[in-house]
Amino acid sequence: MTGNIFGKLFKVTTFGESHGKALGLIIDGCPSGLELNESDIQKDLDRRKPGQSKITSARKEGDKVELLSGLFEGKTTGTPIAMIVYNKDQKSKSYDALKNIFRPGTADFTFFSKYGIRDYRGGGRASGRETLARVAAGAVAKKILAYKNTKIIAHTKEVYGIRAETFDETEIEKNTIRCADKNAAALMEKKIIEMSKQGDSVGGIVEIIAKNPPLNLGTPVFDKLDADLAKALMSIGAVKGVEIGEGFNVSNLKGSQNNDVFYKDKKNKLHYETNHTGGIIGGISNGEDIIIRIAVKPTPSILKEQIAMDVSGNKKNIQIKGRHDPCICPRIVPVAESMVALVLVDAMLRTSVARIEQL
Amino acid sequence: MTGNIFGKLFKVTTFGESHGKALGLIIDGCPSGLELNESDIQKDLDRRKPGQSKITSARKEGDKVELLSGLFEGKTTGTPIAMIVYNKDQKSKSYDALKNIFRPGTADFTFFSKYGIRDYRGGGRASGRETLARVAAGAVAKKILAYKNTKIIAHTKEVYGIRAETFDETEIEKNTIRCADKNAAALMEKKIIEMSKQGDSVGGIVEIIAKNPPLNLGTPVFDKLDADLAKALMSIGAVKGVEIGEGFNVSNLKGSQNNDVFYKDKKNKLHYETNHTGGIIGGISNGEDIIIRIAVKPTPSILKEQIAMDVSGNKKNIQIKGRHDPCICPRIVPVAESMVALVLVDAMLRTSVARIEQL
Amino acid sequence: MTGNIFGKLFKVTTFGESHGKALGLIIDGCPSGLELNESDIQKDLDRRKPGQSKITSARKEGDKVELLSGLFEGKTTGTPIAMIVYNKDQKSKSYDALKNIFRPGTADFTFFSKYGIRDYRGGGRASGRETLARVAAGAVAKKILAYKNTKIIAHTKEVYGIRAETFDETEIEKNTIRCADKNAAALMEKKIIEMSKQGDSVGGIVEIIAKNPPLNLGTPVFDKLDADLAKALMSIGAVKGVEIGEGFNVSNLKGSQNNDVFYKDKKNKLHYETNHTGGIIGGISNGEDIIIRIAVKPTPSILKEQIAMDVSGNKKNIQIKGRHDPCICPRIVPVAESMVALVLVDAMLRTSVARIEQL
Amino acid sequence: MTGNIFGKLFKVTTFGESHGKALGLIIDGCPSGLELNESDIQKDLDRRKPGQSKITSARKEGDKVELLSGLFEGKTTGTPIAMIVYNKDQKSKSYDALKNIFRPGTADFTFFSKYGIRDYRGGGRASGRETLARVAAGAVAKKILAYKNTKIIAHTKEVYGIRAETFDETEIEKNTIRCADKNAAALMEKKIIEMSKQGDSVGGIVEIIAKNPPLNLGTPVFDKLDADLAKALMSIGAVKGVEIGEGFNVSNLKGSQNNDVFYKDKKNKLHYETNHTGGIIGGISNGEDIIIRIAVKPTPSILKEQIAMDVSGNKKNIQIKGRHDPCICPRIVPVAESMVALVLVDAMLRTSVARIEQL
Repeated sequence: MTGNIFGKLFKVTTFGESHGKALGLIIDGCPSGLELNESDIQKDLDRRKPGQSKITSARKEGDKVELLSGLFEGKTTGTPIAMIVYNKDQKSKSYDALKNIFRPGTADFTFFSKYGIRDYRGGGRASGRETLARVAAGAVAKKILAYKNTKIIAHTKEVYGIRAETFDETEIEKNTIRCADKNAAALMEKKIIEMSKQGDSVGGIVEIIAKNPPLNLGTPVFDKLDADLAKALMSIGAVKGVEIGEGFNVSNLKGSQNNDVFYKDKKNKLHYETNHTGGIIGGISNGEDIIIRIAVKPTPSILKEQIAMDVSGNKKNIQIKGRHDPCICPRIVPVAESMVALVLVDAMLRTSVARIEQL
Repeated sequence: MTGNIFGKLFKVTTFGESHGKALGLIIDGCPSGLELNESDIQKDLDRRKPGQSKITSARKEGDKVELLSGLFEGKTTGTPIAMIVYNKDQKSKSYDALKNIFRPGTADFTFFSKYGIRDYRGGGRASGRETLARVAAGAVAKKILAYKNTKIIAHTKEVYGIRAETFDETEIEKNTIRCADKNAAALMEKKIIEMSKQGDSVGGIVEIIAKNPPLNLGTPVFDKLDADLAKALMSIGAVKGVEIGEGFNVSNLKGSQNNDVFYKDKKNKLHYETNHTGGIIGGISNGEDIIIRIAVKPTPSILKEQIAMDVSGNKKNIQIKGRHDPCICPRIVPVAESMVALVLVDAMLRTSVARIEQL
Repeated sequence: MTGNIFGKLFKVTTFGESHGKALGLIIDGCPSGLELNESDIQKDLDRRKPGQSKITSARKEGDKVELLSGLFEGKTTGTPIAMIVYNKDQKSKSYDALKNIFRPGTADFTFFSKYGIRDYRGGGRASGRETLARVAAGAVAKKILAYKNTKIIAHTKEVYGIRAETFDETEIEKNTIRCADKNAAALMEKKIIEMSKQGDSVGGIVEIIAKNPPLNLGTPVFDKLDADLAKALMSIGAVKGVEIGEGFNVSNLKGSQNNDVFYKDKKNKLHYETNHTGGIIGGISNGEDIIIRIAVKPTPSILKEQIAMDVSGNKKNIQIKGRHDPCICPRIVPVAESMVALVLVDAMLRTSVARIEQL
Repeated sequence: MTGNIFGKLFKVTTFGESHGKALGLIIDGCPSGLELNESDIQKDLDRRKPGQSKITSARKEGDKVELLSGLFEGKTTGTPIAMIVYNKDQKSKSYDALKNIFRPGTADFTFFSKYGIRDYRGGGRASGRETLARVAAGAVAKKILAYKNTKIIAHTKEVYGIRAETFDETEIEKNTIRCADKNAAALMEKKIIEMSKQGDSVGGIVEIIAKNPPLNLGTPVFDKLDADLAKALMSIGAVKGVEIGEGFNVSNLKGSQNNDVFYKDKKNKLHYETNHTGGIIGGISNGEDIIIRIAVKPTPSILKEQIAMDVSGNKKNIQIKGRHDPCICPRIVPVAESMVALVLVDAMLRTSVARIEQL
């Protein structure tokens, strides 16, 4: 019944509820000798936190991370790395009205049904606030990947049907949507504000790219790299779909179109002329960029009046107060990057000995 | 570096290569007292095997399963259940031409790159033949689900852009495509034969439905039921995308449209008026049907001439002989059912004690 | 390379070094609905802490535990339970002299050899202080066992050859040695003080009894209950041996002596006339008390002058300052109880579904 | 509820009952490129098999192993290695008399209590015959260790109080007891034959030595090398105790005696003047020989009349026919070697990346 541990050799155990004392995590399995400090982590936490713009929730989360263990003189020691972020500004009172209510589109009912008890304050453990710990862990994974010259970039690809048509990496952090297409970003933002005024929210698609990933990651047949990525990303609350490379578009393709053809570059290294497969074939990374897209549902918490259910099973009209994200895509960006980073690092550690001569 | 074990409490370890002596598996964790015999398994193996129609590969696989352990007087004993299927008709010779060739769209290169050695006969471990063991294990999982009145049904939803518009469960096994829409099935079959004549293949979409699934399955935050399903299905060689409920369509929806509204049925049981979420919310099954779709790529092995790479890195035109599946969807159907069944049974076992009073 | 997670379904992840900021743990998998508060934990931490008497180390550890998550209105919710104990009184300076020294009998060299970096302050992660997190986790496990009327009792059975001959449970917490034989306790204490005056330490044997354990715990063939207990107890730093029931004395017995004979009690329940096997047979608990003994080595940190090695490989005479435990047995008692409690709870959760009708 | 999988990165899944169709195993995680053939395995199976001398059971087991997968042209490929041994000579009929009987000292009752069904033929899964699969897997692990110049040697150290006083490795396979002291071997054999004539059995102690083990194996704090060894060895049916280095003798030692002192050898390599610790300190191998002893109980199946229990709970005098091992120590020798080999190989794989620069 444990489900709060991620990874096999780079294991991340997270804890914490939306309105509890603190959230945090332990990383077990980080190699020693990695330079690490709190600002490495804080940087990404700040990208995740709410209140960054008018299109994200205004709640002040602060989210100052503290490293508790696993470091000595600025370097990891191979022992568990624990981090904690204390919750501030926990206005639990404001949630009393939801005490006996199962909100539609949320995990209120399923958590209660399963556990018979529910921390109803802000969604408890089912709150999106849980992803804070993922981002903190992911920041460590990213440092390891940087050591191997691998970089993870996520961006908002689509919002309510508006799709980015161009990709300029430098644009991503310049707009509130984290879209790599300046023009699409403007349209998306306009649409989100419009929906927000209606007290509604919208869904979208986020794309994640692992640039220059290590070769040979992934362990067939069940722990294929794409399988592990799918699980990692689908475990994010708002995600309803994952696709790699051509993804669902393969349904429109012939084999002769979809197969990627090899070539050798000037350094005699093997490459592919196309990347329909998205950098993974037979469950193993082939050295090309890994390209993944995820479907992000519209935030279920909306201002618009909705029909909920109370614990006695009666329908009840409710309006959820507070400011919620009208489109969660820009805040999913750092979370998705983190999950991909965690999968790649775990796969790297697992792949370190594949052949007897590597022992 | 182990990747051939699936599940946490209902663990399936598989082995075997396309042209080795045998394929098989061990199930560790099956509860005792389940009635089981070889015909329970054989039934599904026969649905997976090639040569069932003109649109599937004509190779004669036979695939007679033998139960080796874990049973006594027709019932499981709680000890490991081993099964074996001996390979017959292993014409390894016919693969000699591929000895030094990496075929495009296959795992030939990535396996060689990772392990430095490659069983090139028919794809070795990377062959689709590996799914035989998944189906055999899945048949046991299905028997357990049947004991709880849960049924898994998969069907071909789309082929090369042709989409099923109606759903009649009784149609599925009546056509070679395993499509639940008779008319669409006819169009699909026509298109596949056309492509086959061109020496090409096509992709599609398979949908899997778990009818009457147990409530409360899934373990947040990382081992959510949808996350486990995504991994299980993405681990099938041909699958490039997984979506649950509305899936990628959430990008076109507002929160007010996507949230499912509760109601109580006549027996006072909680239900939802819609099922946008696909039976899983907050990572836990809510009792509604679980609905998943997977993107199935066009078979990479095609008769058409293609550009491959030899081990020295030179391009080489090749034509892959033998009869391959021009569309693998109908044979993915039993495999996908099996993976979903394995995930649900594993989740059931993990969910058995969520509350102290269940101990 | 992860080694800081204990258990399969009741998973405990611990962190922290002797002189870092804090120690703590996360329990993932605790059933919901268990009443729990900080004093449940503190009680056992106080039994473990140093400075309880003249025969234990005088370091003031304070060790106030704080519960951070997983609870709502005094009960567990099924989400991860995190606990933290901040380190106070971290006089790291006093360890500067040991910076370049590998002390004999400690993990100084092996940690450095493996990780290439070493937190030398007080042993870092290899310090006995790490057991604090085990005891905190064990306190939760004990509450679950209490719910099932199972109790774990440990006591010092032998010290430097002096063996307890009688067993009176009420005596255990009355003497500084935690020995259940009042007379032996007096002799042991005298011997320990004598050794302490010589700047030396002594080893001993601790016995752990699980009274009224649940039937059917343990999962053959590799995860037998005795195998899991052996691992759990051998993972305590000072432990060099584990035996169950007759243990090493089986070498002196005939089969006809060692086999336990069944009988039915007045309530028609199966029992054994003897308990040579120590409550576990074929790796499964048979309902009788589980009886285990562990060999506890003499504390390696002694005041007496010793020959150490410096990082350059030169021998160096050292005297380790500070007050260390001349016999660690009484402080191992709560640690050993905790490890046994953790194993039993984990086995209970794993054993909840053995038969199909329990699903 | 799965308990038939051993290891974390070198995973061994075993199956089979004493009188089922076959026994076997799958190794998942063996590096590619290892030369391996059936005679590597058969050699050790022959050392384990019954009927080798007048002091071992006379049952003809044959035990011809067949490699089914994971090899190509005589080398491992990194895919699962499956092996099978078909059972011959399964005279199940002879066990009908035991159908409703729980024999004392065996797992008959606990298996029935847990699973509600029991394969009573020769102990079913609880039979010592299960260790065949351990030995087959261990043979592969030994080949990997040989590649690193590590060798595992086990020998019978004590039988019914008679202790080997000298150690001559070349003697071990020369006597039926596998004792390294020729004179003690003669006394042991005489005693065993005497007991056998009385229809009784005796216990003993087996010692296992890992010569020239790799440095740095083991992962504190829970997966210490000694903890993993203890679990592995205690999981052997007949074992009731495990000790490392001085083991239970630490209770008689002072710290100043038990601490091992370092020295540098001529090649400037660190060593220890003594090996009280048995090659493992702080849970990590220090490069010295690893020395372990296990307590082996007297075989419970004896010819002498005993009091059993029938399923209705009535006492019943029984005499167990057939020839059983009057002392199982010599046949435990290859099993214990195998378990140690499996632990070391698994630890090697886990230890391959401890530092960032090893990535």
